[in-house]
Amino acid sequence: MKIAVLPGDGIGTEIVAEAVKVLKALDLKFEMESALVGGAAYDAHGHPLPEATLKLAKEADAVLFGAVGDWKYDKLDRPLRPEQAILGLRKNLGLFANFRPAICYEQLVGASSLKPELIAGLDILIIRELTGDIYFGQPRGRRTAVDGHFPGAEEAFDTMRYSRPEIERIAHVAFQAARKRSKKVTSVDKANVLETFQFWKDVVTEVGQQYPDVELQHMYVDNAAMQLVKAPKAFDVVVTGNMFGDILSDEASMLTGSIGMLPSASLNSSNQGLYEPSHGSAPDIAGKGVANPLATILSAAMMLRFSLNQEAAAQRIEAAVQKVLAQGLRTPDIYSEGTTKVGTAQMGDAVVKAL
Amino acid sequence: MKIAVLPGDGIGTEIVAEAVKVLKALDLKFEMESALVGGAAYDAHGHPLPEATLKLAKEADAVLFGAVGDWKYDKLDRPLRPEQAILGLRKNLGLFANFRPAICYEQLVGASSLKPELIAGLDILIIRELTGDIYFGQPRGRRTAVDGHFPGAEEAFDTMRYSRPEIERIAHVAFQAARKRSKKVTSVDKANVLETFQFWKDVVTEVGQQYPDVELQHMYVDNAAMQLVKAPKAFDVVVTGNMFGDILSDEASMLTGSIGMLPSASLNSSNQGLYEPSHGSAPDIAGKGVANPLATILSAAMMLRFSLNQEAAAQRIEAAVQKVLAQGLRTPDIYSEGTTKVGTAQMGDAVVKAL
Ligand SMILES: CC(C)[C@H](C(=O)O)[C@@H](O)C(=O)O
Ligand SMILES: CC(C)[C@H](C(=O)O)[C@@H](O)C(=O)O
Repeated sequence: MKIAVLPGDGIGTEIVAEAVKVLKALDLKFEMESALVGGAAYDAHGHPLPEATLKLAKEADAVLFGAVGDWKYDKLDRPLRPEQAILGLRKNLGLFANFRPAICYEQLVGASSLKPELIAGLDILIIRELTGDIYFGQPRGRRTAVDGHFPGAEEAFDTMRYSRPEIERIAHVAFQAARKRSKKVTSVDKANVLETFQFWKDVVTEVGQQYPDVELQHMYVDNAAMQLVKAPKAFDVVVTGNMFGDILSDEASMLTGSIGMLPSASLNSSNQGLYEPSHGSAPDIAGKGVANPLATILSAAMMLRFSLNQEAAAQRIEAAVQKVLAQGLRTPDIYSEGTTKVGTAQMGDAVVKAL
Repeated sequence: MKIAVLPGDGIGTEIVAEAVKVLKALDLKFEMESALVGGAAYDAHGHPLPEATLKLAKEADAVLFGAVGDWKYDKLDRPLRPEQAILGLRKNLGLFANFRPAICYEQLVGASSLKPELIAGLDILIIRELTGDIYFGQPRGRRTAVDGHFPGAEEAFDTMRYSRPEIERIAHVAFQAARKRSKKVTSVDKANVLETFQFWKDVVTEVGQQYPDVELQHMYVDNAAMQLVKAPKAFDVVVTGNMFGDILSDEASMLTGSIGMLPSASLNSSNQGLYEPSHGSAPDIAGKGVANPLATILSAAMMLRFSLNQEAAAQRIEAAVQKVLAQGLRTPDIYSEGTTKVGTAQMGDAVVKAL
């Protein structure tokens, strides 16, 4: 078993180092190989996703990814910006199924913007389609408008699209995930306006007929954005497209107040996967040793579960994280009075000890 | 001055009746004429936006709109569904500038999902472009995919697009609104992925140079969805496209916990406008006399201000609404212990009395 380790930029290197520490402490046999990605790769090789990095990722069973991005790359042409690395990995590895749990840990209820009774016990699984939609649809670009409100004017455009098999496979992923949970799927669309999402709704409904034991609910994206705020616990499995999933999964993460705790997994049809924390590269705190490594450590646990077939090891890590929380250890992002403030490496060490 | 009154479906008729009551109590000279729209128009005339209704709306100085939609129309072909009426009015009247305030009333802080300290005093103005973007972009439809992941498969697609003048005019609206407030604009885009929104960002930046006194900040839509939850009061004027604006304005409204209080205005370049509550037709409580009419009454105030040039009358209405809140009157949606529960008509009467 081979893991490609891609720490990236900002706090990426620090948090991935802790996850690697935890993985090494497990006494499992796997090879780990690191490579540069994002801004770090651009600085060294002139491209955010160098050939060698992509090759390593393709050959590995799983990719452990930190984060990419920094203000200093904002002025680069789009194809050279750090986030192109993550889009390129998703596309080239065919990672169409993104799992974004939004879980509120008992001890961290107070970190949420929401009133405790609304958020305590939250456990949503957002399943976002990750290789289709307006993210990759062609054609796109700039041109002179031939119709619309201002014919003759300069305009920019993108293409939203979904094909039947793309919708079918992500719907199956969602229904199967729901079978292992509370057997309820909310499919989020904008069928009242978009052809793409009327089709989405139709195809998800069809696939749903193969899962009579799972309840299927449809919701418009604007309403979903509201209901997440109003009554987040009414959701269980949420499935949606790439663009809506980008927005809703971030909204849901932030509802918990502890996005520093939330892992993610992006899988292809052979269960090869990329695992990364739900938060970003946080350049403002990079290098200070204060970043929370737990989302990355929990991403490593998801990796063991989904791509490396090591359920027991995954559970060991998850239990260890619960234990350090119970011990009262907190990085600054989740600190509250009466708990013990620790740094990135101390937190990683504590997880290793708790394994 | 002529007002087209389009109550629509569900609670629409009840809440609009109260707004009309308030308008009549003002002793101003304007003509009001009603017409059917949405499901009600479909039932009577076979179309959600009959010719006569559209003609009335076009000829009026302003449209006072209730709400449209009901489950029972869900099975109709898209062009006949109630929400096509609102899309048709926006398009035909050229209502490109949508104003969606998200305000948290002092007395209603407790209704929010958020902790009081995060939401008390909230006063955001979301300015959503309303006649462009993927809502109206052509081409759109179903076809056989020629490329992408599954060439040969059935697919559906839509076109996202913005032209330079469309972006310029909404940017001017936002900067001018900011000048009357705290001189800060947040432009929300997804420039890291979409050509349309890289262009959006570029053009908004250019327009911003004409407003050196207004601070301009750019934010990605996923981050905006998070920051609204984390620190909503950090926003003042937010400007964004039609699709992102649909999602973010609903999220922001729900943060206040009292969407039954939030008006909206949609204007064209001659200040002709459509005014409607931010909430929907709520078929579940229709006909029961319990709906909150205040969002519609406050929409009538916006109408007086923006389209009918009656600032003093607008302020009279707004002061009257504040007064009934201070008196402790509450419809069920905003009721809390220690206040007085009233119905739709009682609330309208109280506002008239407080004028
Ligand atoms: C960095 C960006 C391209 C990316 C996305 O939009 O998918 C990010 O927001 C995410 O959700 O992983
Ligand atoms: C009903 C629907 C077409 C509409 C929209 O998406 O614009 C609604 O959600 C709104 O925001 O007014």
